[in-house]
Amino acid sequence: MTHTPFPSWPDVAAQLVSVAAGRAAADTIITGGAWVNVHTREVLPDHDIAIAAGRIAFVGPDAQHCKGDDTRVIDAKGRYMIPGLCDGHMHIESGMLTPAEFARAVIPHGTTSMFTDPHEIANVLGLEGVRMMHDEALLQPINIFTQMPSCAPSAPGMETTGFEITAEDVAEAMEWPGIIGLGEMMNFPGVTNGDEKMLAEIAATQRAGKTVGGHYASPDLGPAFAAYVAGGPADDHEGTCEADAIARMRQGMRSMIRLGSAWYDVETQITAITEKGLDSRNMILCTDDCHSGTLVNDGHMNRVVRHAIECGCDPLVALQMATINTATHFGLEREIGSLTPGRRADVILTSDLKTLPIETVIARGQIVAQAGECVADCPHYDWPDAARQTVHMGKTLDASDFEIAAPKGANAVTANVIGVVENQAPTRALKFELPVTEGRVQATGEVCQIALVERHRATGTVVNAFVSGFGYTGPMAMASTVAHDSHHMIVVGTDAEHMAMAANRLGEVSGGITIFKDGKELALVELPIAGLMSDSPASEVAQKTEAMMQAMRDCGCTLNNAYMQHSLLALVVIPELRISDLGLVDVRSFEFIPLLEPQS
Amino acid sequence: MTHTPFPSWPDVAAQLVSVAAGRAAADTIITGGAWVNVHTREVLPDHDIAIAAGRIAFVGPDAQHCKGDDTRVIDAKGRYMIPGLCDGHMHIESGMLTPAEFARAVIPHGTTSMFTDPHEIANVLGLEGVRMMHDEALLQPINIFTQMPSCAPSAPGMETTGFEITAEDVAEAMEWPGIIGLGEMMNFPGVTNGDEKMLAEIAATQRAGKTVGGHYASPDLGPAFAAYVAGGPADDHEGTCEADAIARMRQGMRSMIRLGSAWYDVETQITAITEKGLDSRNMILCTDDCHSGTLVNDGHMNRVVRHAIECGCDPLVALQMATINTATHFGLEREIGSLTPGRRADVILTSDLKTLPIETVIARGQIVAQAGECVADCPHYDWPDAARQTVHMGKTLDASDFEIAAPKGANAVTANVIGVVENQAPTRALKFELPVTEGRVQATGEVCQIALVERHRATGTVVNAFVSGFGYTGPMAMASTVAHDSHHMIVVGTDAEHMAMAANRLGEVSGGITIFKDGKELALVELPIAGLMSDSPASEVAQKTEAMMQAMRDCGCTLNNAYMQHSLLALVVIPELRISDLGLVDVRSFEFIPLLEPQS
Repeated sequence: MTHTPFPSWPDVAAQLVSVAAGRAAADTIITGGAWVNVHTREVLPDHDIAIAAGRIAFVGPDAQHCKGDDTRVIDAKGRYMIPGLCDGHMHIESGMLTPAEFARAVIPHGTTSMFTDPHEIANVLGLEGVRMMHDEALLQPINIFTQMPSCAPSAPGMETTGFEITAEDVAEAMEWPGIIGLGEMMNFPGVTNGDEKMLAEIAATQRAGKTVGGHYASPDLGPAFAAYVAGGPADDHEGTCEADAIARMRQGMRSMIRLGSAWYDVETQITAITEKGLDSRNMILCTDDCHSGTLVNDGHMNRVVRHAIECGCDPLVALQMATINTATHFGLEREIGSLTPGRRADVILTSDLKTLPIETVIARGQIVAQAGECVADCPHYDWPDAARQTVHMGKTLDASDFEIAAPKGANAVTANVIGVVENQAPTRALKFELPVTEGRVQATGEVCQIALVERHRATGTVVNAFVSGFGYTGPMAMASTVAHDSHHMIVVGTDAEHMAMAANRLGEVSGGITIFKDGKELALVELPIAGLMSDSPASEVAQKTEAMMQAMRDCGCTLNNAYMQHSLLALVVIPELRISDLGLVDVRSFEFIPLLEPQS
Repeated sequence: MTHTPFPSWPDVAAQLVSVAAGRAAADTIITGGAWVNVHTREVLPDHDIAIAAGRIAFVGPDAQHCKGDDTRVIDAKGRYMIPGLCDGHMHIESGMLTPAEFARAVIPHGTTSMFTDPHEIANVLGLEGVRMMHDEALLQPINIFTQMPSCAPSAPGMETTGFEITAEDVAEAMEWPGIIGLGEMMNFPGVTNGDEKMLAEIAATQRAGKTVGGHYASPDLGPAFAAYVAGGPADDHEGTCEADAIARMRQGMRSMIRLGSAWYDVETQITAITEKGLDSRNMILCTDDCHSGTLVNDGHMNRVVRHAIECGCDPLVALQMATINTATHFGLEREIGSLTPGRRADVILTSDLKTLPIETVIARGQIVAQAGECVADCPHYDWPDAARQTVHMGKTLDASDFEIAAPKGANAVTANVIGVVENQAPTRALKFELPVTEGRVQATGEVCQIALVERHRATGTVVNAFVSGFGYTGPMAMASTVAHDSHHMIVVGTDAEHMAMAANRLGEVSGGITIFKDGKELALVELPIAGLMSDSPASEVAQKTEAMMQAMRDCGCTLNNAYMQHSLLALVVIPELRISDLGLVDVRSFEFIPLLEPQS
């Protein structure tokens, strides 16, 4: 399936003018609704919207003059007409769904525009993978704009990714039809230090007239932050407190505040508007990361807007933060984000502006969801084998690959252990005394083993280490090819045999998540696309993911967000201790440290 | 003199980052001022701004870490630091000054960005004239962005201009470095009726990613207006009442409200914000047209902001309307319009936010005005002869060219007379009985003669007609090559000899305005550039213009804005009756009508 570009405003201006003037018939008229105007911040009762060629031709108290014999009429009496919602920054891969299935899941929630950074696939498949995501995005009935990933690898020199993104890649991607800007510039120390490659990526984006996404994940709002701002990022979603939001807006950035499946940064920052009374135009709502379960059970951008309202934000201001503010930020204010002539006819009908039930969703003039059901076609890209066969382990593993040899003659060793902390992304760098049996170090008590299995270049590399905090008991292992950001395979287990079983299983199914206990597979989530995504419906993925999380609990794990903790253990940009294909990384100093302390 | 492009943000990002981080020295630091933040709408006392490479590198409570041995320090203690003011839509030619002299006149008033539509010169010299204005604009120390004129001629078929602007011209101009969009689309009936040429110009602009200026000069806010909006114009400055402003903003346009030398549209429209409480982000202040006298005596955008505040607008909101709102509208919010990192260092220091005294003006990091004096160089373009010799009359005129023959044997005739109405742009279509002497129709009483002298193609054409309302007495004539929009030459007089004298005089000086009375020249304003502009300083032009208006009064004219009335008599887009090189035009029906009614 190939992408047919949606006709631009100038392509269809003559038709829109004719419809507005009453010389031609609209395709569709929505009648008698309350027009939620995000430009003026007003609600205007009893208005009609006339639609032609997928765009809005006319909005006024009466569109009868635009009606022809074949014009479809949608009655909106008693309901509000609001612009389709925009997600200002997000990663589709976080839902473990392809763009098509992600779209199908969020359309019933009223999301009609997403600004998505396919950072995960960039690590696995490089520019070509980004292009595949971009191409599937363009097939969808809603607007999925791609932000070109900026940082693969996330930590150069500390890990080996499947592919790397270069400044030349960025410049090339800026020419693609669906690229809206640069994805979050996570290498904030690089920008602050004037790293040439990072500045070159930003420059390529700015010269293309596109928007540079930011990611400044530090509480330091002094000169380091100022230097990052001077480097060019135009927004940031890493703020967590009111001072963060205010600092970003004062410095001329847009503050993106997120409610993801595990991010709760709206309540703490929206007070900059609701309490401090700052101009709200520079605040934008986003999700960043949503799991399939959230999409199936809770919602998407409708959940974020509703939450912002619950936090005390005026509903119209909250809607602006998910519509026109986002559109303006990306230079799209004349394309999406409001119900006014010329714009894509992306409309939600809802009977309550506070609880925001999403009753009907119209995208580009077509009804795409009714009463919570997606009724649109969300075409799949024809993913090639290169994208479906990405687990290259080089060999079948066995228990010996996961055995950790002790120094000769030692009865016990001091090991550096990755300490998982509940409800926190940072880990702790711990030290444990571990016993030695038959020349091998034994993980005991709260410590179990972790292994990073190289899967991009079939090197056969397995890096072994220790982790604490999961609470696993009995012989078990869990493996995942979702392993931020390099997305090798992370295996955590209490037993080398089980670790080999779990790893080999993912090789067999070309990626996903599996748990073995007592020699049997308890749960499997197949993620055949790049080892990151399923092309099955969200409900199916959510169900399997729920079963996987139950299996973790069945193995003795009581952590909140236990799977997320597992998948982040190779994220060598967040302190303190992580694992990569090159070894154990102390992220405080960006140095490799030995697994076992030298014998004293 | 050739234009050296001002380095872009990415060109100098590495330097800005270094300065912000404290690794390199700023060129200039402004210390201890109150930071007027137009993003958040706050005033933050005791802030410093560090500037490097003409851009802002750092803003914070303390920029000492950016200071080096050679850093210039500007003390702003006790003063506000506000962004340089932007004029959202204007015509430089209205000041009868070249871009360089206009810039020199407005810099002391704090204007550092102008969005200017060289519509007048386009009628005289076509695309090449636009390019000359554009090129001189780029030489200036402030930001003059050019809007490509859209409508030359203004009334196709009703007049002959020096040159015409085509859709191809528009597409070509979109590639020039200083073009920001399309100038006001005045042919609103054309857009509403789907005129192909008008839609092609808009399409060329939209496809270039630039902003389409609007001009909807009608009180009809029904389907005709809706159709105009659907055609693509993104702003409009022709609103005159609150309902106009509200309608434009609701429909997703930006409402530009103007205070020009003769436009007073702020007070009547700003109530949409100050009383109705609509979101202010879509309102923009502009001047449209300012005479040199206004610039010399009253101010420029500082006058508009001050006036908006006097109308009850919050000073910070008014400043937003002349800074960030404008910048955002033109896609320049990361380039100008706020005092934040990366932006051009365009800063005003003022000690009062309400009365807005403009004490120091900094543009691109350089002090350009101090205490009302421009201290910057405003380089002149080397205007070629083609631009300096534009009065092509084809012959020396004599009295006979201005004599109006009566039908054979008639003792009196009924003439169609252009009726000037004080303080109104529209004229009235009047009929007068006029006597005949020696076979010639005599202008008597309140009626005098008007002639349109063709001056672009040396055809020798003189179109004669009658006008009432000036009040001239005694033998006199006044001629002007500023004659909107075709800019031929308009001669008004009581005597054919004097009319010939005045017309020939303008041929001699290559354009301008002159008045003759009793055989002597009372006043002369030389406008050698295209017959529209002087390259002398504003003060000189203002003085001569004042003398010219005094001469009009000396000839018996008591009208307000008498010169403007004179110069608009060929503006064949404003009802009711006008003159063009093709005849007498009834603008109500867009038809030519005879000068003399048929004898009954």
